[in-house]
Amino acid sequence: MQFLSDNAASVHPAVWEAMRAADAPDSPYDTDALSQRLDEAFSGVFGQEVAALWVATGTAANCLALATMCPPHGGVVCHEEAHIEVDEGGAPGFYLHGAKLMLAAGEGAKLTPGAVHAVIDPIRDDVHQVQPHALSVTQASEYGRCYQPQEIAVLGALAKQRGLHFHVDGARFGNAVAFLDCAPIDAVGGADALSFGSIKNGAMSAEAIVFFDPALADVARYRRKRAGHLQSKGRFLAAQLLAMLDGDLWLANARAANAAAAEIAGVCGDRLMHPVEANELFVTLSPAEREVLRLQGFAFYDWGDDAARFVTAWNTRSEDVSALAEAISAL
Amino acid sequence: MQFLSDNAASVHPAVWEAMRAADAPDSPYDTDALSQRLDEAFSGVFGQEVAALWVATGTAANCLALATMCPPHGGVVCHEEAHIEVDEGGAPGFYLHGAKLMLAAGEGAKLTPGAVHAVIDPIRDDVHQVQPHALSVTQASEYGRCYQPQEIAVLGALAKQRGLHFHVDGARFGNAVAFLDCAPIDAVGGADALSFGSIKNGAMSAEAIVFFDPALADVARYRRKRAGHLQSKGRFLAAQLLAMLDGDLWLANARAANAAAAEIAGVCGDRLMHPVEANELFVTLSPAEREVLRLQGFAFYDWGDDAARFVTAWNTRSEDVSALAEAISAL
Amino acid sequence: MQFLSDNAASVHPAVWEAMRAADAPDSPYDTDALSQRLDEAFSGVFGQEVAALWVATGTAANCLALATMCPPHGGVVCHEEAHIEVDEGGAPGFYLHGAKLMLAAGEGAKLTPGAVHAVIDPIRDDVHQVQPHALSVTQASEYGRCYQPQEIAVLGALAKQRGLHFHVDGARFGNAVAFLDCAPIDAVGGADALSFGSIKNGAMSAEAIVFFDPALADVARYRRKRAGHLQSKGRFLAAQLLAMLDGDLWLANARAANAAAAEIAGVCGDRLMHPVEANELFVTLSPAEREVLRLQGFAFYDWGDDAARFVTAWNTRSEDVSALAEAISAL
Amino acid sequence: MQFLSDNAASVHPAVWEAMRAADAPDSPYDTDALSQRLDEAFSGVFGQEVAALWVATGTAANCLALATMCPPHGGVVCHEEAHIEVDEGGAPGFYLHGAKLMLAAGEGAKLTPGAVHAVIDPIRDDVHQVQPHALSVTQASEYGRCYQPQEIAVLGALAKQRGLHFHVDGARFGNAVAFLDCAPIDAVGGADALSFGSIKNGAMSAEAIVFFDPALADVARYRRKRAGHLQSKGRFLAAQLLAMLDGDLWLANARAANAAAAEIAGVCGDRLMHPVEANELFVTLSPAEREVLRLQGFAFYDWGDDAARFVTAWNTRSEDVSALAEAISAL
Repeated sequence: MQFLSDNAASVHPAVWEAMRAADAPDSPYDTDALSQRLDEAFSGVFGQEVAALWVATGTAANCLALATMCPPHGGVVCHEEAHIEVDEGGAPGFYLHGAKLMLAAGEGAKLTPGAVHAVIDPIRDDVHQVQPHALSVTQASEYGRCYQPQEIAVLGALAKQRGLHFHVDGARFGNAVAFLDCAPIDAVGGADALSFGSIKNGAMSAEAIVFFDPALADVARYRRKRAGHLQSKGRFLAAQLLAMLDGDLWLANARAANAAAAEIAGVCGDRLMHPVEANELFVTLSPAEREVLRLQGFAFYDWGDDAARFVTAWNTRSEDVSALAEAISAL
Repeated sequence: MQFLSDNAASVHPAVWEAMRAADAPDSPYDTDALSQRLDEAFSGVFGQEVAALWVATGTAANCLALATMCPPHGGVVCHEEAHIEVDEGGAPGFYLHGAKLMLAAGEGAKLTPGAVHAVIDPIRDDVHQVQPHALSVTQASEYGRCYQPQEIAVLGALAKQRGLHFHVDGARFGNAVAFLDCAPIDAVGGADALSFGSIKNGAMSAEAIVFFDPALADVARYRRKRAGHLQSKGRFLAAQLLAMLDGDLWLANARAANAAAAEIAGVCGDRLMHPVEANELFVTLSPAEREVLRLQGFAFYDWGDDAARFVTAWNTRSEDVSALAEAISAL
Repeated sequence: MQFLSDNAASVHPAVWEAMRAADAPDSPYDTDALSQRLDEAFSGVFGQEVAALWVATGTAANCLALATMCPPHGGVVCHEEAHIEVDEGGAPGFYLHGAKLMLAAGEGAKLTPGAVHAVIDPIRDDVHQVQPHALSVTQASEYGRCYQPQEIAVLGALAKQRGLHFHVDGARFGNAVAFLDCAPIDAVGGADALSFGSIKNGAMSAEAIVFFDPALADVARYRRKRAGHLQSKGRFLAAQLLAMLDGDLWLANARAANAAAAEIAGVCGDRLMHPVEANELFVTLSPAEREVLRLQGFAFYDWGDDAARFVTAWNTRSEDVSALAEAISAL
Repeated sequence: MQFLSDNAASVHPAVWEAMRAADAPDSPYDTDALSQRLDEAFSGVFGQEVAALWVATGTAANCLALATMCPPHGGVVCHEEAHIEVDEGGAPGFYLHGAKLMLAAGEGAKLTPGAVHAVIDPIRDDVHQVQPHALSVTQASEYGRCYQPQEIAVLGALAKQRGLHFHVDGARFGNAVAFLDCAPIDAVGGADALSFGSIKNGAMSAEAIVFFDPALADVARYRRKRAGHLQSKGRFLAAQLLAMLDGDLWLANARAANAAAAEIAGVCGDRLMHPVEANELFVTLSPAEREVLRLQGFAFYDWGDDAARFVTAWNTRSEDVSALAEAISAL
């Protein structure tokens, strides 16, 4: 019973179907009919004109977005546990040509205006210190926490006021919107760009970079090619994204994953290290308790010495969810 | 009738089947069972121990390979019409951190030892001039020409003798091996790494970097992640490559494309700008002649003012091939 | 008798004097009184408001200037024998993060509008090809040729029209202005930035980057620090530059060097490979003839197999000049 | 009375004299006689064969050294208040092509084995996390603290054991050796390279990178040129360094600065935030107290809200030192 991660889950049947339908030859790269529909499709989701580019990974989405926002000699403010800092093998350093990640603290891997100020206010405006050019937050956060619309709007406003571009890493954006139950545009806080995750949510190999500022998208197109991310059969990536948007499959899948997490959270009580607002659970569990669970067939990651992380996905089976809830209750 | 490029052709049924079979959850990135089989599968193809990494594009394959071979302050010798120089949007500059492509001339986009010497011999061994660290050739070349085993072996030996790493861009490696009718290992000339193309040959989104020197592969693994090319559902890329290798599908597909090209070449006579040794034809055709062909439904690219490029693929229909041959004959 | 290069010549007494006068402690980096005077001093030279930054080498000047003009995914058009291409150890690749030098041909290492068009016109405006963002010319050129005001103005206008920034490498700018006998501003063709050389012209270790567009200077200040070129005792560099400008020492020194070159040129006749318009002479000389000259104590570089390069400097002794002229005449 | 910094102090007469003596023309870059003597001169200082390169700034010295030690995808462990992290405008990101600085804590800006372990031990050996490749410490530290020979030896041994290169930023190395009163080699802990500072210690514009591993020096030579740091009149930098080494002027100057700091420290008592082991004093002083001192003509930097930093130099006048000591006593 699989609770390791949503990042390797199966592909949704509707995505498969869309990919098969895309098999007929079309023009290469992003000149095919499906890729050409992305801007319109995402504009529909966000209720305003956006430019959307497919890429194969969240790391590429984040870094291509940020590379349009921050010069090599600048810095990007982010949480000290942000994916771009911790889990991307130094990709921001590569894509941003040595720009600096400026690390802020914050509960639940969420940033607050205070935390951002604590990082940027002491920076002297001189050439000896790297100057901040962008702010990046993760919605939902690396601990499965969501920014309420007004929370992220305040951060977006702070960024604008300080002349910083604003990026949202939405590897689990669907889970956030499903939790917040708001319009998608209200979950991005006036961002310049959003990494719109799909792979953890039922797609195979397609994420979108959604640019709310089309000028940035133009730069990103060159950089995507330069990074070797412009696939020649791009129609198969576009097909995945369009299938995810079609009929709001992305929200349905995210709701399913969230519901599974909520069911398990319901039995965890004080064991929960973070409120469960998306599809991740961080649960205090002793080594012995984890051993008990594993012997019952549950797969999950240890989280330090005294806890475990469980992640649900769009297709986590309800019987597995119930079984895990029962097993934790029984500890 | 499609002769624009092989790079957007349909996906082979066996590849689809393998991808569907890979849908069951497995561990992420390249830790899944299929990805773990790549080294062995490619070692079988080449008759010696190799390390093989999947990536999503030929550009990424070429640049990740070269990045293991040449420091930022070095240079890579290649043909002036090489894909890495002309068609990758500056990706080598990105991946190699500003290393220099050192351009050599040569008929048919093929390098000769003389052409390589003409580039490297005048370089003074001092810090004012960029020093060559690698040599890259394309098999089959950008004009559909192949290096005979002894030709590429001589280049490989020259590289070794001069302390240069040796890379082969094999975006159409299958077409080359099918034409040369040799053991795959004999077509790489002792290379340190080969970009083994599959996407133009029936796959969807998977190329392999085959490292004949495993130490380079270790570096490439870090760089692949850092470039955002380590897909979390990597099993779908591994599945494509394994399907291509299974039963030598890659050679069967390449032979089909080559045969189609040869059939058309048979009627082109003096119109051929280059001998046809793979699946590309460069044909002298006046604007009026091209118009005639287009009116009959043939799609292809202009090649300068007085010529056209036709590319066949694994699935080019024999009736289309015959029709094109007839149409050219009738001009 | 030294005709190897002007790049290691002695330091002019007025420069020494100014450096000594700068020894009193002042505030560090470029906050000292002398550094603060640079903008005004260079504005006086060019008759318009400019921003001027000191750096220690021409390579740093060129690359910092270009880094403000061209993004990492762009290209810089320059002559195939330009210093930035041939002699800077790949520095543009480093400073511009892998941007591409796009090489144009041209007699005497000078560019013409036709040569620039030949490079940029074939570039398709798509992401597969690197797009030009800047044009760089050398005044005087690597072969000691000068652009007449109208020649460089045409190139500058072409750059503007095509949306390219325009850079002038003026490692020997004084020699050019001395030859052209024009206002300095007329020798830059509306450039966005000029690398204003002093080291070859009597200074020790200070070149200026003169920005005609102050917005670029702001970026360059951060980049200069980031490149380790912001010296803490910057007043000693500013002092050198101010001494060079004071009383137009830079022009007097350049005229002296030019005159010495002209005297030698007068006896070279058909041996001259390029008209002598600055302080460099490229002279056809057989190996035996060069041997004869060397036996008489003349030091110079071979230029290929059948020629030699002679360079005069601000302090080349008139007796050495006469001796060389006589020696060449006597061959 | 100047206590702002040692980084803009006057140039020592012996350095001036050596520079003047270097004015006679010699061959360019580092091929002159003085530059060629550097290896031997520094080998004498350290009692073993080393390779030494001049550069114009400490930032360049640090970053060129580190660039030979850490690939773009790697990391450098350093103190969170290290100069490379805080004061170099992001230069390590530039020179190391986006490699990551991995920040460790530690009293007095000194690292301990425990602090290093706390950074590197949690790093999983997988591609998702940047792997450490080098360790950098500052001797004397940014708070004027010195590593005892056994302390730095333990860090060097830890580096070696973990496969990390070891770098020492010695911007104030002379002050450290003067304080430690040990052989210079004992103050570097088996480092692969040392940034040997001179500019803060009486030189004008020359630091040395001392490579204890000559293979690294070869790479650094190419990188120095590529960074625009290979000055054509390099003999003037070599002259400065040789003058500093001659008769151990570097130690005499450092001792003078240390003694001045010690005299002031003697009256500071509990006001001292750090033991004074070099030429920097961090002194708790209220705003009012600082105002009092400034009114008496003392120049120094505030250090946060409640303290000040005083730095002595090789030429700080003894009457100024006494005056400051008295003034502080009188507060």
